[in-house]
Amino acid sequence: MRTAHEYRESLRDGRTVYYEGQRVHDVTTHPILRIAVDHAALDYEMAEDGRYRSLAVVPRPGGGEMSRFFAMPRTAEDLLARSELIETGTRLGGTVVPLLKEIGTDALFALQLVAHEMDGTLGTHYLGRVREFFTRCRDHDLAMAVAQTDVKGDRGAGPSDQAHPDYYLRIVDERADGIVVRGAKVHTSVSMNANELIVLPTRALGEPDNAYAVAFAIPVDTQGLSLVVSPYAGPAASPFAYPLSSRHRMTESLTVFDDVFVPRDRVFLQGEWQYAGSLARTFVEFHRFTAISYKLPLVDLLAGAGQLIAQYNGIERAGHVRDKLTWLIAYAQTLRKLTRMAALDCSRGALDIAVPDAATVNIAKLHFASQFHQAIAHVQDLAGGLLVTAPGQADWQEPALRPLLERYLGGKGVGAEARLRLLHLISDVTTSAMGGYHAVLAVHAEGSIEAEKLTIYRTAPMDRYVALAKELAGIA
Amino acid sequence: MRTAHEYRESLRDGRTVYYEGQRVHDVTTHPILRIAVDHAALDYEMAEDGRYRSLAVVPRPGGGEMSRFFAMPRTAEDLLARSELIETGTRLGGTVVPLLKEIGTDALFALQLVAHEMDGTLGTHYLGRVREFFTRCRDHDLAMAVAQTDVKGDRGAGPSDQAHPDYYLRIVDERADGIVVRGAKVHTSVSMNANELIVLPTRALGEPDNAYAVAFAIPVDTQGLSLVVSPYAGPAASPFAYPLSSRHRMTESLTVFDDVFVPRDRVFLQGEWQYAGSLARTFVEFHRFTAISYKLPLVDLLAGAGQLIAQYNGIERAGHVRDKLTWLIAYAQTLRKLTRMAALDCSRGALDIAVPDAATVNIAKLHFASQFHQAIAHVQDLAGGLLVTAPGQADWQEPALRPLLERYLGGKGVGAEARLRLLHLISDVTTSAMGGYHAVLAVHAEGSIEAEKLTIYRTAPMDRYVALAKELAGIA
Amino acid sequence: MRTAHEYRESLRDGRTVYYEGQRVHDVTTHPILRIAVDHAALDYEMAEDGRYRSLAVVPRPGGGEMSRFFAMPRTAEDLLARSELIETGTRLGGTVVPLLKEIGTDALFALQLVAHEMDGTLGTHYLGRVREFFTRCRDHDLAMAVAQTDVKGDRGAGPSDQAHPDYYLRIVDERADGIVVRGAKVHTSVSMNANELIVLPTRALGEPDNAYAVAFAIPVDTQGLSLVVSPYAGPAASPFAYPLSSRHRMTESLTVFDDVFVPRDRVFLQGEWQYAGSLARTFVEFHRFTAISYKLPLVDLLAGAGQLIAQYNGIERAGHVRDKLTWLIAYAQTLRKLTRMAALDCSRGALDIAVPDAATVNIAKLHFASQFHQAIAHVQDLAGGLLVTAPGQADWQEPALRPLLERYLGGKGVGAEARLRLLHLISDVTTSAMGGYHAVLAVHAEGSIEAEKLTIYRTAPMDRYVALAKELAGIA
Amino acid sequence: MRTAHEYRESLRDGRTVYYEGQRVHDVTTHPILRIAVDHAALDYEMAEDGRYRSLAVVPRPGGGEMSRFFAMPRTAEDLLARSELIETGTRLGGTVVPLLKEIGTDALFALQLVAHEMDGTLGTHYLGRVREFFTRCRDHDLAMAVAQTDVKGDRGAGPSDQAHPDYYLRIVDERADGIVVRGAKVHTSVSMNANELIVLPTRALGEPDNAYAVAFAIPVDTQGLSLVVSPYAGPAASPFAYPLSSRHRMTESLTVFDDVFVPRDRVFLQGEWQYAGSLARTFVEFHRFTAISYKLPLVDLLAGAGQLIAQYNGIERAGHVRDKLTWLIAYAQTLRKLTRMAALDCSRGALDIAVPDAATVNIAKLHFASQFHQAIAHVQDLAGGLLVTAPGQADWQEPALRPLLERYLGGKGVGAEARLRLLHLISDVTTSAMGGYHAVLAVHAEGSIEAEKLTIYRTAPMDRYVALAKELAGIA
Repeated sequence: MRTAHEYRESLRDGRTVYYEGQRVHDVTTHPILRIAVDHAALDYEMAEDGRYRSLAVVPRPGGGEMSRFFAMPRTAEDLLARSELIETGTRLGGTVVPLLKEIGTDALFALQLVAHEMDGTLGTHYLGRVREFFTRCRDHDLAMAVAQTDVKGDRGAGPSDQAHPDYYLRIVDERADGIVVRGAKVHTSVSMNANELIVLPTRALGEPDNAYAVAFAIPVDTQGLSLVVSPYAGPAASPFAYPLSSRHRMTESLTVFDDVFVPRDRVFLQGEWQYAGSLARTFVEFHRFTAISYKLPLVDLLAGAGQLIAQYNGIERAGHVRDKLTWLIAYAQTLRKLTRMAALDCSRGALDIAVPDAATVNIAKLHFASQFHQAIAHVQDLAGGLLVTAPGQADWQEPALRPLLERYLGGKGVGAEARLRLLHLISDVTTSAMGGYHAVLAVHAEGSIEAEKLTIYRTAPMDRYVALAKELAGIA
Repeated sequence: MRTAHEYRESLRDGRTVYYEGQRVHDVTTHPILRIAVDHAALDYEMAEDGRYRSLAVVPRPGGGEMSRFFAMPRTAEDLLARSELIETGTRLGGTVVPLLKEIGTDALFALQLVAHEMDGTLGTHYLGRVREFFTRCRDHDLAMAVAQTDVKGDRGAGPSDQAHPDYYLRIVDERADGIVVRGAKVHTSVSMNANELIVLPTRALGEPDNAYAVAFAIPVDTQGLSLVVSPYAGPAASPFAYPLSSRHRMTESLTVFDDVFVPRDRVFLQGEWQYAGSLARTFVEFHRFTAISYKLPLVDLLAGAGQLIAQYNGIERAGHVRDKLTWLIAYAQTLRKLTRMAALDCSRGALDIAVPDAATVNIAKLHFASQFHQAIAHVQDLAGGLLVTAPGQADWQEPALRPLLERYLGGKGVGAEARLRLLHLISDVTTSAMGGYHAVLAVHAEGSIEAEKLTIYRTAPMDRYVALAKELAGIA
Repeated sequence: MRTAHEYRESLRDGRTVYYEGQRVHDVTTHPILRIAVDHAALDYEMAEDGRYRSLAVVPRPGGGEMSRFFAMPRTAEDLLARSELIETGTRLGGTVVPLLKEIGTDALFALQLVAHEMDGTLGTHYLGRVREFFTRCRDHDLAMAVAQTDVKGDRGAGPSDQAHPDYYLRIVDERADGIVVRGAKVHTSVSMNANELIVLPTRALGEPDNAYAVAFAIPVDTQGLSLVVSPYAGPAASPFAYPLSSRHRMTESLTVFDDVFVPRDRVFLQGEWQYAGSLARTFVEFHRFTAISYKLPLVDLLAGAGQLIAQYNGIERAGHVRDKLTWLIAYAQTLRKLTRMAALDCSRGALDIAVPDAATVNIAKLHFASQFHQAIAHVQDLAGGLLVTAPGQADWQEPALRPLLERYLGGKGVGAEARLRLLHLISDVTTSAMGGYHAVLAVHAEGSIEAEKLTIYRTAPMDRYVALAKELAGIA
Repeated sequence: MRTAHEYRESLRDGRTVYYEGQRVHDVTTHPILRIAVDHAALDYEMAEDGRYRSLAVVPRPGGGEMSRFFAMPRTAEDLLARSELIETGTRLGGTVVPLLKEIGTDALFALQLVAHEMDGTLGTHYLGRVREFFTRCRDHDLAMAVAQTDVKGDRGAGPSDQAHPDYYLRIVDERADGIVVRGAKVHTSVSMNANELIVLPTRALGEPDNAYAVAFAIPVDTQGLSLVVSPYAGPAASPFAYPLSSRHRMTESLTVFDDVFVPRDRVFLQGEWQYAGSLARTFVEFHRFTAISYKLPLVDLLAGAGQLIAQYNGIERAGHVRDKLTWLIAYAQTLRKLTRMAALDCSRGALDIAVPDAATVNIAKLHFASQFHQAIAHVQDLAGGLLVTAPGQADWQEPALRPLLERYLGGKGVGAEARLRLLHLISDVTTSAMGGYHAVLAVHAEGSIEAEKLTIYRTAPMDRYVALAKELAGIA
């Protein structure tokens, strides 16, 4: 297994990364991007840390060790352990998931299942390719990003019906040894600091869209691949006022494929349009289980910060305060219980992979997503206006001001420093750019709220429900 | 074990029952009350029915058989089986729980736990008494009611501070062989058709309230005990228009104790005011697990009836319809998953009894209760105005009208009869007196919404939440 | 103007009314239907009552007096007075609108506007007919019902696409002196106790639907017209336990047109399919203003009953109680303020009729409808379980029981009688059949929630909103 | 009247302002603070701009002109004009209220009313002082800030019960010519760029708190007054990515009174503790009317931006999209209609001042505040993940990247530039620091959500509600 140091070293290749309009030649030393690199390195550091080692490291088939992320889940317990590992990384990451191995393995589980299905039905030979790539990632302990969402243009139209043929990534040429692809993906998380980029289709396709049915993996330094990293959240901030976002950050890129060549043994879908939807969904279902796991530290934090600031403000016994805290607790616990239930109710299908229960996963995700903004409102309500009017780090460090701040900003049984630290934490996670980031992720990451609803409807035990209604109504 | 027939026979004692202002001498033949008797007999009929026997009947310690309700839960699996039995009875009961053994065993589990605690701390000898009574109920397969809620008067004041000393049940005399109690309880379910009445305190008490700290069990035909059964829901209705409430009904009574004598070996709490709250709570926590189990057929029915009427109305593909159906599905499934989780996360404490996880139970109950009215609104929205304007049984049976109704009231791919039956089912469960009953039960039965919130707050892993907030805020 | 007595007399014609499968020969003496007749007579009694006379009666154009309902609204003040009259009738009606003149005049205002438009565009001569009929109703002070909603069959398909050609009312023949219509309408309120039945189309139509484009008015005793009155809410109930529904009731009918002949001068739309949607909508918009006016006593009652029962229960100072009461107050007041605003922001268009602001009307209606079930939940929460377990009238009148009830069912500073009366009022309006009726009406009457949303979207000042967004975004 | 230039000049006095730990000697040239100065100058620029002049300027009593803000409202029309002026300034201010005259005149109206009441009851002579100061502000067209919220310490305890006597501002000395005050206020908006600071108590007080009962006005450059301006929102941002917050900003300060002397003729409350609550409330009620007026551009923008981005994304016809847009429309319109109603239902009491209807104002405010986070969630849902992953200004201006962005980021019938501008606008107002600012202001500014609820309960027509309940229940 690689060390965090080796991981950082591995990012110093010729990758094409732009940030704030400029080419970045070494992401590990760039003043902003390095924050994201250091944050993501948690996925390696956990394996080196005695406190997390037994969770993060498991024996490798054939000998040696490997990251648990690469362990194919066979049982509910495997899924629970994977969930706990994801949660732990995110807790250490200050509510931001490291994601370097989480999302990639989600994709690789899905690719294996769909490759298996295609091979069986179509007589293709994808599974071998996927497994070879999977083994390579596992044995080299690689960091992986997944590019799925196309730029899409008019979302009401399919790939072939767009004003512009490149609004979805497509195969523009086939060569003896591989294919050439063109297009762009958006929201590609951790791409600038991964080793491998796994590319998946984003939706179900029709036959006319067959050139858009493509999945593959390429190293991030591949010729023709450009990453335009989002400047969202701006420059590095002070740790006093931004205790989380100053240290923890994930980046996304507009990921441009300018006639990129993909060798044949790295192509996992090529024109089989009937399987594009299945591949997209299978990945997303694994990934939503990752999502509900990595949301747990965030919802726990909201409950804890809400309780603590209520105490600091001296309002913890007021009826409405108790009511809001109870809401936050139920919000957090419901997510946790449903996440566990999704693992416990897993199904074992093809390839002996334990798949989390899709109905429960999506209900958990919808529960989280549809009420997140309300949770934020409650925490802001408990915290008070200082969230946006409190003094910052420079004020706190200024000798002429510190005595004033200490004198006037204490709370109930607590000094100004602890209270300000807590207020800044809440502000960071709810009102700053990081707060906005969490809010948008709640609504859109791992599929939209509407996509979750669709899955819930589709996976419901409707026959049982309708049979009960008919029986009680006396309908034959 | 008793048969349903034996159960009915056992109710023909001298019990004092009033209904609609009149003394009822045989509840099994009264035109209204017999509906409730027949309904509740399900708890006996399941044991006689091959389809449910393996669920309803288990070996008795010491040989023979007994109702599973009397099996002390030792494991999560025991709790899951108990939950399934409760759910099954309620499904057969058309969303109304039979309750003849459910609530009584909830009380007996709680009485054993608290008696054990009292005996250990105070040197009392309650556990033996409770167990003797428990064994009697079990071996004679008795039907049990539980009287807990006092009439209360001014709810903002304690028992001793009321304008009237009898607003809470109290001990008014002690004799050599027992005690005499006076007062009244309300909302006593299935009392008129039970064999034994178990009486519990309704709240925590202070030392001045010690005369109010009393728990015991008496046969329903005890001298001085009067049951004023609620006339709610009125006369018997036609099965066509009221498919559920015409056959399934539960009654509650105002339960008056007019200087009732209780023999000493049936007294389970006598003055130990410190344990009144604990006993009240321990019972309620078991009973809320019963509650979330028996709500499952109701929420499943709402989802199924919603889907089916949407199809019959030809609107099942509309966006807003899908949205409402998805809401109903998530509502139902979340309750089911949390109910299972409450069993799976049970704790084993004193007396080797498996106790459902209180936090999860209450979160599940609050989830159900706080959104039930919204669920009703969605189903009514899908069904349409015919819920309150459709023709009824007499119209349907009138030859001059039937052809008109058949001609005009069909739906999409369905004839008028099935559509009317379904509409009447939905009407029965959402707009009739039964609908109102379900709604009020959602809010108040097994403790109010506010009581559930209190328990959620009290049982939360707040230390863990706060520690996370402090850690991320950098507070020592 | 007619007296209430004259109104009752006028109903003794040969009308074809069925109730509970039987032909009813005199609706004014039928034990159930007479409740609805007596209730609706309020619209006449107000004019005879000195307390309401100035509100209910205005000078008639050309001399004499007339019901204010027939006054064409010319100003915001006219609309406010009309709204107050509707509210007053409903308050006297115990939350049930009398409706004998309300809905008919809504229809007649709409018919005039659309007739005017048709005459101008198509050269038809409908306005004269409508006005003649309007004058007749006004001068004879007639009671009017409106039949709009067709039985519809598959709601996802239009009239011409149904499995059955009569799922929407249609013209089946034209004669020299009029037309013949066939079909059935549902939810026709107050039809059995009105004098005239005004018939309107229920939706926009396409050219193939032209036979379905029909509007007219006929006396209720017209040959071929049958009213199958809904048995909903069942037999008459005791005034103690059902203080409102025992005295106030409205009926709806399945209204069957079995080749009914309509004389030409009573035909107001005949094949002009392009105007069916406009007529349906114009009526509904007037009628929704009526609706938000007649909902006011209901929402006020919920707030008042909530406050009073909280006091009686001794919980009025608890934080959560205050919160729920405040919610109920804001719910009631927002409806009232928006209703007034809808009048104040009226527009004056064709025929000098003041039309309430459609955007505001629909926002008010949606506000009411989408939160009504939550309002009920709050009131039930404040009231407690006695809503469904309290003793009833026969218990109260039984000398053996009265002392017990008086002894045990008092509240904080209030005796058992007042508390029981209030609980029964709340039960009547929230849990009984009347409660279900109010709930379904909230969702469906005067158009569904989805129809209200559609109107809100359609009437929004979207150009202004979008212009602001573009300006602030710097988009040319 | 002063020009914007004169206003800026007036800020160059010796005021003690700290920002990011450093003393700022000229707020008009400081790179960050000047943004707030320029923004607030809108209150002067409107008066100079022909488009707004008739709204912003009115004749001055005694001749000449004055800002309309200083016009005492006498009628509903005056309040509507004041509301429109506030809305217009905020629209020009990109959803941020200028506030330089809005809040100060709110305070001065309240001070006059309470001074009048005190003078009448206590024989004091405050009204003359207040009017003299009011006339001075009006005639010199001064910019005014209001310091109300104390730092508070333990919010569960009153001023006299704090661990620290200075947690509420108090009088520490009285001299022949005035008083000396000590303490600190927080959240003092526009203090660093106002001319006068008006100081009000923040809550009702008891007799032991009489030293805390103090109100007065002082110039911002008064000796001993220090403003520690909040660093929230950080450095200036690019106008492309932050179209609003790069140009519009308001600042708040921790406002420290270090034994500040206040001349007697500027003291408006001195020890009359019985009037502290009344003064606090009277100000807040005026100010909440200001608040609901200045929220209008924000809610309109959310509706407009939601509609436009839905079109750009090609999803505007989807059912769930229409549903969310309709929600946003109803949200915006309800606020607007209630705001108008609050003016139209004003009361005229003492001093002939028209006071907006407090019940309506608070219901409007609660409507806005309690659903704001949901509004944000809906807009984010419609916009998509590019809110936090889109390229920024530097990317857009980089020639190597522009073609890629133009190629890939267009939408339905719209180029990349307009779409990115709109996305950045939405991001600025919902996810950036400005978004967080709006969210916290929604919950806390002008009093908390709980304070609004309290006022709604207190001002409800409860007697009328309860009388209706009693009448319908038959309770004497």
